[in-house]
Amino acid sequence: MSAKKYVYFFGRGRGEGSARMKNLLGGKGSNLAEMTNLKISVPPGFTITTEACVESMKRRGSFPPGMWKQVEKNLGKLEKAMGLKFGDRNAPLLVSVRSGARVSMPGMMDTVLNLGLNDQAVEGLAGRSRNPRFAYDSYRRFIQMFSNVVLGIPIKHFEELLEKRKRERGVELDTELTAADLQEIVRRYKALVRELIGREFPQDPRQQLRLAVGAVFGSWSNPRAIKYREIHRLPHIWGTAVNVQVMVFGNMGEASGTGVAFTRDPSTGEKRLFGEFLMNAQGEDVVAGIRTPQPLEKLKHIAPKAYQGLDRICRRLEKHYRDMQDIEFTIQEGTLYLLQTRTGKRTPAAAVKIAVDMRREGLIDKKLAVLRVDPHQVEILLHPMLDAKAKVERVARGLPASPGAAVGQVVFTAEEAEAWAARGDKVILVRAETSPEDVGGMHAAQGILTARGGMTSHAAVVARGMGKPCVAGCGDLSISEEERNFLVKGRTVKEGDWITIDGTTGDLMLGQLPLIQAELSGDFALLVQWADAFRKIGVRTNADTPTDAAATIHFGAEGIGLCRTEHMFFEEDRIIAMREMIVAEDVEGRRKALAKLLPMQRSDFKAIFERMRALPVIIRFFDPPLHEFLPKTAHELHVLSDDMGIPLERLQRKLEVLQESNPMLGHRGCRLAITYPEITEMQARAVFEAACQMVREKKKVHPEVMVPLIGTVEEFRHQRVIIDRVAAEVMREFGVKVTYQVGTMIETPRACLVADKIGAEAEFFSFGTNDLTQTTFGFSRDDSGKFLAQYLEEGILADDPFISIDEEGVGQLMAIAVKRGRSARKGLEVGICGEHGGDPQSVEFCHRAGLDYVSCSPYRVPVAKLAAAHAALKEKVQITEMGEK
Amino acid sequence: MSAKKYVYFFGRGRGEGSARMKNLLGGKGSNLAEMTNLKISVPPGFTITTEACVESMKRRGSFPPGMWKQVEKNLGKLEKAMGLKFGDRNAPLLVSVRSGARVSMPGMMDTVLNLGLNDQAVEGLAGRSRNPRFAYDSYRRFIQMFSNVVLGIPIKHFEELLEKRKRERGVELDTELTAADLQEIVRRYKALVRELIGREFPQDPRQQLRLAVGAVFGSWSNPRAIKYREIHRLPHIWGTAVNVQVMVFGNMGEASGTGVAFTRDPSTGEKRLFGEFLMNAQGEDVVAGIRTPQPLEKLKHIAPKAYQGLDRICRRLEKHYRDMQDIEFTIQEGTLYLLQTRTGKRTPAAAVKIAVDMRREGLIDKKLAVLRVDPHQVEILLHPMLDAKAKVERVARGLPASPGAAVGQVVFTAEEAEAWAARGDKVILVRAETSPEDVGGMHAAQGILTARGGMTSHAAVVARGMGKPCVAGCGDLSISEEERNFLVKGRTVKEGDWITIDGTTGDLMLGQLPLIQAELSGDFALLVQWADAFRKIGVRTNADTPTDAAATIHFGAEGIGLCRTEHMFFEEDRIIAMREMIVAEDVEGRRKALAKLLPMQRSDFKAIFERMRALPVIIRFFDPPLHEFLPKTAHELHVLSDDMGIPLERLQRKLEVLQESNPMLGHRGCRLAITYPEITEMQARAVFEAACQMVREKKKVHPEVMVPLIGTVEEFRHQRVIIDRVAAEVMREFGVKVTYQVGTMIETPRACLVADKIGAEAEFFSFGTNDLTQTTFGFSRDDSGKFLAQYLEEGILADDPFISIDEEGVGQLMAIAVKRGRSARKGLEVGICGEHGGDPQSVEFCHRAGLDYVSCSPYRVPVAKLAAAHAALKEKVQITEMGEK
Repeated sequence: MSAKKYVYFFGRGRGEGSARMKNLLGGKGSNLAEMTNLKISVPPGFTITTEACVESMKRRGSFPPGMWKQVEKNLGKLEKAMGLKFGDRNAPLLVSVRSGARVSMPGMMDTVLNLGLNDQAVEGLAGRSRNPRFAYDSYRRFIQMFSNVVLGIPIKHFEELLEKRKRERGVELDTELTAADLQEIVRRYKALVRELIGREFPQDPRQQLRLAVGAVFGSWSNPRAIKYREIHRLPHIWGTAVNVQVMVFGNMGEASGTGVAFTRDPSTGEKRLFGEFLMNAQGEDVVAGIRTPQPLEKLKHIAPKAYQGLDRICRRLEKHYRDMQDIEFTIQEGTLYLLQTRTGKRTPAAAVKIAVDMRREGLIDKKLAVLRVDPHQVEILLHPMLDAKAKVERVARGLPASPGAAVGQVVFTAEEAEAWAARGDKVILVRAETSPEDVGGMHAAQGILTARGGMTSHAAVVARGMGKPCVAGCGDLSISEEERNFLVKGRTVKEGDWITIDGTTGDLMLGQLPLIQAELSGDFALLVQWADAFRKIGVRTNADTPTDAAATIHFGAEGIGLCRTEHMFFEEDRIIAMREMIVAEDVEGRRKALAKLLPMQRSDFKAIFERMRALPVIIRFFDPPLHEFLPKTAHELHVLSDDMGIPLERLQRKLEVLQESNPMLGHRGCRLAITYPEITEMQARAVFEAACQMVREKKKVHPEVMVPLIGTVEEFRHQRVIIDRVAAEVMREFGVKVTYQVGTMIETPRACLVADKIGAEAEFFSFGTNDLTQTTFGFSRDDSGKFLAQYLEEGILADDPFISIDEEGVGQLMAIAVKRGRSARKGLEVGICGEHGGDPQSVEFCHRAGLDYVSCSPYRVPVAKLAAAHAALKEKVQITEMGEK
Repeated sequence: MSAKKYVYFFGRGRGEGSARMKNLLGGKGSNLAEMTNLKISVPPGFTITTEACVESMKRRGSFPPGMWKQVEKNLGKLEKAMGLKFGDRNAPLLVSVRSGARVSMPGMMDTVLNLGLNDQAVEGLAGRSRNPRFAYDSYRRFIQMFSNVVLGIPIKHFEELLEKRKRERGVELDTELTAADLQEIVRRYKALVRELIGREFPQDPRQQLRLAVGAVFGSWSNPRAIKYREIHRLPHIWGTAVNVQVMVFGNMGEASGTGVAFTRDPSTGEKRLFGEFLMNAQGEDVVAGIRTPQPLEKLKHIAPKAYQGLDRICRRLEKHYRDMQDIEFTIQEGTLYLLQTRTGKRTPAAAVKIAVDMRREGLIDKKLAVLRVDPHQVEILLHPMLDAKAKVERVARGLPASPGAAVGQVVFTAEEAEAWAARGDKVILVRAETSPEDVGGMHAAQGILTARGGMTSHAAVVARGMGKPCVAGCGDLSISEEERNFLVKGRTVKEGDWITIDGTTGDLMLGQLPLIQAELSGDFALLVQWADAFRKIGVRTNADTPTDAAATIHFGAEGIGLCRTEHMFFEEDRIIAMREMIVAEDVEGRRKALAKLLPMQRSDFKAIFERMRALPVIIRFFDPPLHEFLPKTAHELHVLSDDMGIPLERLQRKLEVLQESNPMLGHRGCRLAITYPEITEMQARAVFEAACQMVREKKKVHPEVMVPLIGTVEEFRHQRVIIDRVAAEVMREFGVKVTYQVGTMIETPRACLVADKIGAEAEFFSFGTNDLTQTTFGFSRDDSGKFLAQYLEEGILADDPFISIDEEGVGQLMAIAVKRGRSARKGLEVGICGEHGGDPQSVEFCHRAGLDYVSCSPYRVPVAKLAAAHAALKEKVQITEMGEK
């Protein structure tokens, strides 16, 4: 039985592998083979397979039988191809030994360069390069790298010797050391190795290679690589390939150089060769930042032949891979070599442009174009951005709580924000932290800046919901609401001063910086249009106001999936009536106060219906606990007491009674509506009066009433009876008919478990995944900041479950609910209206889970559409992309 | 095809039905038939079946074909048997028409007495009874009752006429009216009916009967009966039977009478005829309370023959039914008639005595004896009780928060409670409300009395856990901690004054009342011993201290299912170290503070192990959020700041940082242990050092470490690694081996859903159903008081899910977890340690769900054992009890 093939050669115009063999040869190795087959100039070499690595692991480090013989054979081929010999005094073969897994794990595994150098070969290198200093420096670097990677000697020992020599010679930079100095250092390095490991530094290049390959295999299992895979959920059993490749040198003189190139501009997507290079340098020098690389255009003049070659190769690679490529190249004494090609990273704007352009060029079809744009990336295109050309001086940085940039004058209270905005000023609301009282002001402001609170603070959550830029938890601010100013890094910013915030980065800048407004147009609009044709599930919005409804239409959503009625109660004239209701002592008092709210709610609903017409509007009835509507501070209570003519004591007592230990699990949602059915009555009346008005005016209307926080079918039934009764009453009064549905949020684990019973009585489900996540995990969103970061860091959780649906737990409950709900009511409409509705990963899950639609903030509609298209396309077509992911 | 049999006759020594036909004949009807067959003197009659009722409902009120013919036939039989005739001027037959469903629905449905009276029959009755006043009063009552039940005329119209006549006659009592007056009233009643319904009051007895039977059928569907069945979850389709029975009169003179009898004393269980009676009276008169009934012994002298007959019948019935009977009887002119027999209600003490006595008498076997005692009932036997003979004057009533009575001197702070108790005084801790700071004082006190808080307040929950009597939320108290007194109903009670509280009723009494101490002995101990032989699942305790461990042994539990380590931290010297740990700025500071706690925890564990030896002890690691350990008031903070030499500001900042919006869902349990692994390390060290000491001393020990609040297997794994590492370290240090297990609480929905993964790594599960209920419903236990009461009242929930496991939701998750956990680990040990572990209904569920054991407070062990035996017995034997349930 002949041994398995463990080694794949590439060189002399033929690679044994190809780009499709990524699993066996790793990303780097498969692309080196592919380029070789394309007759692109690649330094020859061979790839040892990931299988060899896996078997070595099983054999506790010893290579699988036959592998080394194959390596020897390929080494011979390499020597023959290059006319060089391992360890030769005149024409020594030097190789690099690099890891290369299926997916890139940057910096996690080991690499050895210049392997093959020894006391003789260094002479050969010096002779051939006519540069002894270069040769001894290479040898020195090799000893250091090999000793560290293979022999496990800490790097600092070598650095100490280097420093010592520099002190002896009175120089500061490595480059000031002469060839003789480096020769001396090599001597000392070797002595150090002898002393530490008890034997000579290995002089036999074959032994060097054997040890290096073993070490690279071993580095797959080093602690940092294991951790990396745990965090990124990559299997440990993959193993890494090893690429052994002839060394080429960009630092052999002024006709040599090295650089990186992108086949298109990764910032803008423009179709032009883009990149930078350094002459007489190696890759390390670029990274070290000692010399500044030059833009690639200049290569045209410095090395026109190499440039033309690069340009030609780039075109071929892009055509071949059908995607923008990120390339590493080296020029050795005028000859161009490609060292790597892979799919290039790009900005969101570039991603859109490249995808649409390539479709226009006929390189890819619409499906692939849609799949090429990562839905995660594009959200940023929908928010105002700082003009990249502006000179930006950051004065402080907070958390990037809600993306987009905003410019405005500083105000310190929600009232001021509303007042200033009312007279046409643009303001940024600056608060220590925000509370529901501030919602009106937040709405009126261009953006929000807070000194306290995390990514899930009130400010952050509400701002994201509104699509308002927000920088939260900017700890450097010291705010004095009384003196109407804040201090930051020694500067005082007063009310009315202009500032700029960038919620995408968390930056705070002083003054007015120029912004670029986002819009859904051009290439992006076209791409979303293509996506619309592919996606299977609908996209609606979470929209609470007529303005939101307008945005819903603007962004092309197919209805409102969540209209939170309580947000309407926070506005100034309404919160007073709301508070009257709360402090009322009996049902009559409550009814009186509710009667004041009725016309306001009705007109809100009417305005929303006017915008939406035939599109469905899901109205969720009152959800939050009552204490959210009462002020918290003693001063505010005083004012309220005076305003309402209610004794302070009574207010305080009410506040005390309403206080809750765990408001998230408290007296809210349908629980409140069951104890105060008059609230449901008022809201139902407002909905149906508005709807009946529409019908009278011969306009289409499609209201769906949603009961929140159901845990038992009995709760739903209780509310449905009231809603149906009021609907019938109102329709009788108006003498018209309105078609409506009554459904429920599914946001407790129990509701999922009894979804068959609920589905028998409810006409639609909408998952409230925010609360469902909180209850399924037992995590309070407001408090989880204390441990979630560490959970993500240590890989206890792969993703923040408040950003992407936890498929294993929450998703399982959702699947149960969908199945049981539809078992009771065939074709039951099921959607999602939690914040996950705008998260691409979650949208894909919702597609797989068989949901009918997702609902998200209007600004995320294009994101959701794209993600929905991805989900549908990934399910249907087996993607055969060859680029590295 | 002959018609179905709808009517069952009983009389002349033969009943067509029997006690086994409760579903068809109702409870009352089947027992009347049974007694007739036993040749017991029962007024003859017939029962119309529940099926006839159900068919009538289907036919919208009209009787099923053939039914009425059967009624007529049986009526004929009845007339013949009695030698009477319906409506006869000389010998009229009078009947009662009573509802009687499968289970008793007291007062929900309708009854008509004296049916058959008309203008002629009343003369016959007057003649035969030689008592015209009696005859006309019966007629008057009949018209009123029939008109109300059958014709729907409000009772008040008749009462007005009666009152009017009394005014005309200048008398006050009904009894002062003469036969002539009553004759006049009958005339007016009939005129009223004629006026209101437009025709004469029906004179034809057959028509009366027809209408009455229809009305009783209809009363099954009256709103109050429907509501009753909804609340008690009884099916609407059962229907009611109707019993038509010859009237007998206890008010026919001094040789007549009526009464109730129990075959044994329902208070004590003593074997003697027990009951009361009234001569020359009807059942109504007893209920009305106008005359005081006499104890049954007196009947021996007044009507010795009837008494002997009753005594004989009671013996026969008890022997026949094999259970204590509750009997209604009437003596008509010296002749004894039985009107009803059913299983008698009894006190917990009587239930135990009767069951054990009947077993001794050979009436029943051990299984039936165990099944005869309701586990719900017996808990009260395990708490001290007020001596029933004491004269009790209640001054106020609060909530019965934790059962049992307690006597002690009033103290107002936890410190005082501990100090007084230390010098041997018995105290009652009186607080506005309690906090975790008070736990030590609560433990030291005999009982707890609070002015605020509900059934789930801190005081209530902790007291129930400790098995301490507690009266909570006694709103009439006005406490002044400063002046060391409280005011109640105008009286001042000072520190040191004696009071008595009864946590079973919620009563507060002044002074020292005599108590009866509970113990598990005598009949009760015997019964529990019988139960032990039948039950399948184990019973452990929730025990946090060596004292609890002693109680565990005393009550015969099989191990500790939950030892909450954090309760150990609240004691005075410990809370200081705990607080040092909390305010420490870094891990080193925390370790230093933890090092002080280590020896204390170790000695606690050692003491518990000493008590338990070979029995398993499940130790749950640290669970609550840290802020529970810091004081809340400014004053307390000041003191702490001084004590610890830490600036007040720093303490306040710490408190702010630790504050949480929803502590229940916050930074606690394994989340805390993952961010502060040094806590787990210290606790593991304390456990294993104590266990190793046991082994060294050649004593058996069986520790099981439990990780709280797991939602993902990764959390468990994180903690298990630490625990195993410390265990290995300690065992190495001690040079001994300890067998131990590491398992987890299952208390979040997510943990249930991924129980297969967790089960692969955890060696046991224990359901924390308190938290699991909170998260499954999304109910905060502390806040649900605001709506739960209404939910229970309106039948939205059948039971309080914090008392009995919600089988539909929470139970479903538990079943998933059991199945999946055991799919990953065969025979995985699964228990429950939430408060449900001591609730009989929940224990039965746990048995059905395949749990290995339940864990409850030591005081509830006998309750749990009994419930477990019930579950096992009900599963195995088809119970053939004939008595009414």
